[in-house]
Amino acid sequence: MTVPAIGVTSGDPGGIGPEVAVKTLARAGELPAAAYVLFADPRVVAAAEARLGLRIERRDWRPDRPAEPGVYLAAVPGPEASPTIGRATAGNGEASFRAFETAVETAGAGRLRAVVTAPISKEAWALAGHPFRGHTEYLARLYPGAVMTFWSERLKVALFSHHRPLKEAVAAVRAGALADFLRTLHRGLGRVPGGPYRLLVAGLNPHAGEAGRLGREEIDEIRPAVEKAAAEGLPVSGPYPPDVLFLEARDRPDAVAVALYHDQGLIAFKLLSFASGVNATLGLPFVRTSPDHGTAFDIAGKGAADARSMEEAVRLAAAFSATGS
Amino acid sequence: MTVPAIGVTSGDPGGIGPEVAVKTLARAGELPAAAYVLFADPRVVAAAEARLGLRIERRDWRPDRPAEPGVYLAAVPGPEASPTIGRATAGNGEASFRAFETAVETAGAGRLRAVVTAPISKEAWALAGHPFRGHTEYLARLYPGAVMTFWSERLKVALFSHHRPLKEAVAAVRAGALADFLRTLHRGLGRVPGGPYRLLVAGLNPHAGEAGRLGREEIDEIRPAVEKAAAEGLPVSGPYPPDVLFLEARDRPDAVAVALYHDQGLIAFKLLSFASGVNATLGLPFVRTSPDHGTAFDIAGKGAADARSMEEAVRLAAAFSATGS
Repeated sequence: MTVPAIGVTSGDPGGIGPEVAVKTLARAGELPAAAYVLFADPRVVAAAEARLGLRIERRDWRPDRPAEPGVYLAAVPGPEASPTIGRATAGNGEASFRAFETAVETAGAGRLRAVVTAPISKEAWALAGHPFRGHTEYLARLYPGAVMTFWSERLKVALFSHHRPLKEAVAAVRAGALADFLRTLHRGLGRVPGGPYRLLVAGLNPHAGEAGRLGREEIDEIRPAVEKAAAEGLPVSGPYPPDVLFLEARDRPDAVAVALYHDQGLIAFKLLSFASGVNATLGLPFVRTSPDHGTAFDIAGKGAADARSMEEAVRLAAAFSATGS
Repeated sequence: MTVPAIGVTSGDPGGIGPEVAVKTLARAGELPAAAYVLFADPRVVAAAEARLGLRIERRDWRPDRPAEPGVYLAAVPGPEASPTIGRATAGNGEASFRAFETAVETAGAGRLRAVVTAPISKEAWALAGHPFRGHTEYLARLYPGAVMTFWSERLKVALFSHHRPLKEAVAAVRAGALADFLRTLHRGLGRVPGGPYRLLVAGLNPHAGEAGRLGREEIDEIRPAVEKAAAEGLPVSGPYPPDVLFLEARDRPDAVAVALYHDQGLIAFKLLSFASGVNATLGLPFVRTSPDHGTAFDIAGKGAADARSMEEAVRLAAAFSATGS
């Protein structure tokens, strides 16, 4: 049986990434059938297994062989034999960066359908001389059409903009860029089972501007972008009043709420989906998913980390990989 | 037994206001002990009672007499004997405006502890020549310190700004105005049972600006306002990342989340509190509450309106009125 190959990185060695990766892959028999390829320093994996009293049944990965169901290890040694737990260090930053970069290159070469990334520390990346604020920004530089989305059982959200000051995010709401975004998002969702997905676009202003009385962006930018995309055949509607949109999109399996700025989408998503949310980057030649939490240095190394979000990220990657690419 | 007097308006005669007011006051025996004074056109009340098959036990109100528990009618006739149901008309706008204005004047004269307002139609007010977008804007002109807050069992939110374009709302985040707002809010909450309330202030930018990398307002405006208010003894903290704040404030009875713009607060509030939310205006010589819904012209006159939010608004007004003013 040939199955899709899915990369998994264990994230910063000093955070909870190795722990949630090991907890998830130790139960690979309960996950959808796939070849789960762990890109990590073997010493970090072994240490996490020892701490947790768990063991991942794994083989070494050979990318030139057809993949069978199970877990494989693609060894990417970091610079240090024994990582510091609980804080950002250059060695840990270099280790997590190398593993991620290797997984992305492997996926970009067509050998992985998806990559699941455990959390890294941007401070550690900076100490190691890698000035990206996260996986998404690295991917966005390689693939300028990358789109950030959030998935949970109750709500799906796509962010038109994410890590920028609100003032700039407001100024960036332009018809042309928004229409491009809707096209990229729709194309990325085309690979995802459960579709076709309807895109519900938020307004920017209170009450979606109320016919211009509370702001002009809906009239001048958002509605033209929605109408252009709809005229091209995309299943898109809006703009909706922002405080009503998420009530509309909630619990609708085929709806994706399009938020125009970071907190518009994430206030809603975190309230509905905390601890089980998954971040997915679309618009790449593969799909990248990740749990919706950080390195949690304060609880790292204690075995206390909640692996639900990591497991959901792996399951979503498997679902995305089940259809053709 | 002398009890607080609480005004109740029945809102636009063509909307669901008379219906939710009658449904609520017909069961006044189950509400907290108070003198509930209905400011309305007696013909509108009688018509709603007839449609619903309900009857409010009521006496005529005499403001010069000590109030005993029960329901009273303060007759404020509108210009028309028989209102149009289901759409905005000048006659209905004039009727709801007169009743509201009379209740506010009565409260301003010290004869009511609180006023509960059923929904009006701003289109109807405009047709009648009263150019306010709602009760709050009318009150804000009379009382410039008026503060808009939202209450439910799970979350309490205060809005630093509400009905303005997002671009303007961002520009209005200034230390001096925010410190003034926090003082007014704290003073208004001082009359409310269940306190003292802790004010949790939102940031404006993603991740609360992340030490200036994602915006400067937290450093230049918000933190100085919070520190100034805290130095004066107010129980205030922040700025919190906007997508984390509502997780912190949720289900904490003594926490009030301070949102810096309309949708930051209302996206969270509506997701947690739909159908049972109450709007309360603080910073007045009395308290004004209202249900968190509109006139719902599409279902008016059919007996189908959900009176839960109106009942919660009446209960909150009674709770606010139970302490000294």
